[in-house]
Order: sequence, then C-alpha cells, then structure tokens
Amino acid sequence: MKPKAVILLSGGLDSAVALYIAKKKGYDCHCLVFDYGQRHRIEIERAGFIAKRARAKLHVLKISLPWKGSSLTDKRGTIPSGRTIREIKNGGIPSTYVPSRNTIFLSMAGSLAEAIRARAIFIGAHCEDSSGYPDCRKDYLETFRKVINLGTRAGIDNTLTLKFPLIDKSKAGIIRVGKRLGVPFELTWSCYKGGKTPCHRCDSCILRAKGFREAGIKDPLLN
Amino acid sequence: MKPKAVILLSGGLDSAVALYIAKKKGYDCHCLVFDYGQRHRIEIERAGFIAKRARAKLHVLKISLPWKGSSLTDKRGTIPSGRTIREIKNGGIPSTYVPSRNTIFLSMAGSLAEAIRARAIFIGAHCEDSSGYPDCRKDYLETFRKVINLGTRAGIDNTLTLKFPLIDKSKAGIIRVGKRLGVPFELTWSCYKGGKTPCHRCDSCILRAKGFREAGIKDPLLN
Repeated sequence: MKPKAVILLSGGLDSAVALYIAKKKGYDCHCLVFDYGQRHRIEIERAGFIAKRARAKLHVLKISLPWKGSSLTDKRGTIPSGRTIREIKNGGIPSTYVPSRNTIFLSMAGSLAEAIRARAIFIGAHCEDSSGYPDCRKDYLETFRKVINLGTRAGIDNTLTLKFPLIDKSKAGIIRVGKRLGVPFELTWSCYKGGKTPCHRCDSCILRAKGFREAGIKDPLLN
Repeated sequence: MKPKAVILLSGGLDSAVALYIAKKKGYDCHCLVFDYGQRHRIEIERAGFIAKRARAKLHVLKISLPWKGSSLTDKRGTIPSGRTIREIKNGGIPSTYVPSRNTIFLSMAGSLAEAIRARAIFIGAHCEDSSGYPDCRKDYLETFRKVINLGTRAGIDNTLTLKFPLIDKSKAGIIRVGKRLGVPFELTWSCYKGGKTPCHRCDSCILRAKGFREAGIKDPLLN
C-alpha cells in the first residue's frame, strides 16, 4: 500500500506542482483545500479540477475567521495593482497577507495527517520570487516542521514530516519542474481578484507572467 | 490604553488561571474559546462565565474537523477511567489526545492577535502533572513561539509574543496561584465526560483532585 501524504492545495500553480511532486514520489495524495472567504474563490473550484486530474483525494475545509485584516478576504481593502517586480520585492509584507494563514493551514494539515496516518505533509511555498509573506520563508517552515516533530504523536514517533520541496526555487524553476511532471497549468489559477479572467495586474498575476517568461514556456491560461 | 492579549480559554482550571495572570499584568484580555465538537461542551458555557467574571472579552470560534481520532471528540472512543496517577503519568499519550489541537488553537490565536493588534498570547499549558499530551510540553511551546516570531507580521515587528506562565508548575502550584489571584474555581470545569457533575474518574478529574489535595485547598466544585 502506498504511504499517504497530505498536500496543501490552493488551486494555484505552486501547490499543483507540489502535488505532482508528491505523486511522482509515490504517495497516495490527500489534497486539503480551504474555503476561508478568499475573494478568488475560483481557486477552490480549480483545486478540485487539479486533484481530480491527478487522481488524488480532495478534502475541502471551511474555516470562518470572524476577524479581518487582509485585503484578500476583506472587500473594503484594496489589492495592490500594477506594481513592478522591484516594487513587489521591496514593498515588504503586502496587504494581501492573511494573518497566520499558513500556520492555520499547516496545523489543520497536521491534524488530518495524524487522523489518516499520513507520512508527509507537502506545502508548495517558496521564498524566491514570492510576495514577501513571512509565512512562506524557509526558517518559518523549518520551525513549523519542528512543531510537528514535537507536538504530534506521529511526529514524536518519527512517522510524519513536513516537506517544502519548492522553497528555494524561482517561479520559473517551479514552472519548469511542473512542465516536466505534466502539471495541468491550464487548470491552475493565480489571480487574486475575483474576476472570470486573470487581471494581469495583481502581484500574483505579475509574478506568474514573469515565471512563464523566464522559463520560456507559454502560459496556457493566456490562450 | 491597556495593551491587548489573547487568552486561550477552555473553561478549565489552568486557562482560567492564565487569564487572571494576564489580567493582573494589566492586559486588556480577549478570550478565545473553541467549539470543536468536544464531549464536555459545558466547558464552553463555563468559559463564558469565567470571561464575564474577569470582565474580559469573549470570542467563540466553531471549528469543524471532519476527521476523527480522539476519544474526546469521537463518541465511539472510550475515555480512560479510574487510572492511578502513576498509570496516567506512565501511560504515554492518552486516547483523549486531539491531533494537533493546541497547534490549531495557537494558530487561530495568532491570527486573532494580529487582527486586533494584541501584544501577547497566553496559554495555560503545563507539563508537570499533565496527561502526557505532546502539545503541552515546554519545547513544543518554545518552538511555537518561534513560529509566531517568524511567521507573523507582528512577530517580525517584535510586537507579539507567546506566553505560557504555568508551564513549569504542578497542578497544586497552579491552584495556589489562582487562589491568590481570586480565580473563580467554582466556575471552572475539568471533567472530560459530558455529565452534569464531574465523574471523578477520568484523568482530568483525578489530576484536579490531586492538585487541590496537594495545595491544601478545598475544590468549591465539590460542595
């Protein structure tokens, strides 16, 4: 029987690549998707398509955080638009940052992993070419790995660990890996806004476009 | 204006003492209570009474974890009963362990803390005289403190930290501190079972009784 893994799947490009890496490594993949009131709810639908394509199981978990604090969930906020790569890189933590999001997601993933006796949790976070979110950095993820090692039964038994295979990669590097693994990029969704087509102006659209350009691959979403 | 703190309140004795410590230290206290399908739902009601008595704010958050794995939430499981203190201490992680519970609670507390700009999060966990839960140990909590320092905007800005003032105390020591601070022990609830009166046989009842006995204080719940 294949060992199980929990994959944090967002419907975006990075987590889809993380899923295909886990699949390639021979895991029985259980995708965990959160419905947390994000504007870009199309992500949830896309995550379902991606999981289905990968023949992975899908768990959708609704979390209601009754407090606000991010332009990604609070419609009164403004999503940064039209920034240059330099502005994105030097702009510090953007308004789209959702307080403790990855910590909440990882803690739930840890709980699911223990319940189904998974051997690994995969997260597609990366710090190169990212938007400056503190909870996507390597030292943060290494510390959270220790939290799992110390704070769960499975971690103590050495039967569960956290994996972040994309952490040191650029967006272009991630796209190249995904291409090699057959990731269905046409199903992924990166835009932060809630529209039917990508806005091409939010940080996420801009970083995606740069990644495909640098990888020398055409983004199938643009066809 | 007083600095704000988020207090993880369970309705039990330890977290009530943590709340009164935070109050004594001059914080504007925001209590966070979780409704996660626990058998002893009376805890949630008691948490409300305790917060009111302490003139603290109360946030109740419902979390639905669609997976099982603990006798505390899964009615098919059996709660250990009638164990001796030695059996409790040497029995390893008990069946009442809820996978990743404190990690989930702390991650939500971190999110609330950032949203309301709190300066501290208080958790009443302790390892002396506890039931062997991995997520109540000092090294676990020290590591989670690092997760907050690294993974949140407020942590990076050095304006938020995690406090666990009871970690090295025995149950008797916690009860003595609570007595001094005027904690309303009669409002607290420790029993894991869902009954109207404490069962006196679950691990939590047994550890509570031992604590009061060793502190030389009478448990007002027993009147």
